Amino acid sequence: MQNRLPVELAKSYRLLNHGPTVLVTSKFGDQANVMAAAWSMPLDFSPPKVTVVIDRNTLTRELVEASGEFALNIPSRALAQMTLAVGSKSGRECGKLSGKFSEFGVGTFAAAEIGAPLIEGCLGWLECRVIPEPHNQQRYDLFIGEIVAAWADPRAFKDGHWSFEPDTPRSIHYIAGGNFFETGVSFEVE
Amino acid sequence: MQNRLPVELAKSYRLLNHGPTVLVTSKFGDQANVMAAAWSMPLDFSPPKVTVVIDRNTLTRELVEASGEFALNIPSRALAQMTLAVGSKSGRECGKLSGKFSEFGVGTFAAAEIGAPLIEGCLGWLECRVIPEPHNQQRYDLFIGEIVAAWADPRAFKDGHWSFEPDTPRSIHYIAGGNFFETGVSFEVE
Repeated sequence: MQNRLPVELAKSYRLLNHGPTVLVTSKFGDQANVMAAAWSMPLDFSPPKVTVVIDRNTLTRELVEASGEFALNIPSRALAQMTLAVGSKSGRECGKLSGKFSEFGVGTFAAAEIGAPLIEGCLGWLECRVIPEPHNQQRYDLFIGEIVAAWADPRAFKDGHWSFEPDTPRSIHYIAGGNFFETGVSFEVE
Repeated sequence: MQNRLPVELAKSYRLLNHGPTVLVTSKFGDQANVMAAAWSMPLDFSPPKVTVVIDRNTLTRELVEASGEFALNIPSRALAQMTLAVGSKSGRECGKLSGKFSEFGVGTFAAAEIGAPLIEGCLGWLECRVIPEPHNQQRYDLFIGEIVAAWADPRAFKDGHWSFEPDTPRSIHYIAGGNFFETGVSFEVE
């Protein structure tokens, strides 16, 4: 059972504010998929919105356009290998029903507000509904979503802030070619 | 004199791929400004593009819309205090000609392809021309820019990759309320 608590929508942008790499999950009909995305960011506080780039050649793109929904899952370092793997192989090459989830042993649980599954072992989850912007989608592969529910692992996100202790799993930031940065030490300035 | 080397445009997205906080510089006529932005991301490889959110109430917004140009400067931890400061005070409250640069002691040098100044002591610089998208700008404060020149400090970015040794200045990721994460350790998975 995934350890998670709801994050109030007004603070949900903070899950993404530091620029971590995310896993995008989607579902339409009986087909679901997961892909990695280094290109996402918060877009607004209220109602909270995000942007994410979803290439036109991906299965995820089909499922997101058909369903009008997606989730951004924030993986920890323990999921880096899986993040690389699901970012390197198309869901079209996997079996239709189970797809990448079974091929890469990705556990999921149900979202609250959308049909797309959420990924076990992540640190945070943003359930999003697409705000249709056909020009952005067609010209730039750019999607805008409104965050309709948010969750976080209370070991890593407390009182509305990430809190990575030395023994806490940390979020990751993709570089290229299988290389990532961990989210590093926190510090405060005045 | 700022230590910097050109970054080939095909690899310039890598300066932003790990989600660092940036400083947005702009100039129109004799007025220039700088603000902090946690919300930016790469949008495309070729030609390389970025997105950045620029609030409609900022002086930067006026200057970017008037000039059609901006630069994204990637500060190191040594510039975190300045990053917070220029993100907290409007350029409208500062003297018109020198503005925030003199008020906060921000050194600059000339860009190659655009009029906006670049900030000394940063780790990377992306010179961008706005691709006009009035609907995105008006509805979402969302700007799309094409990267027309890119630079990096060769101590931190080598052979097309960030390379943060223990004694190298690192990029930063804004959280909230004066708190940042440093970019952490790098690791590789297969």
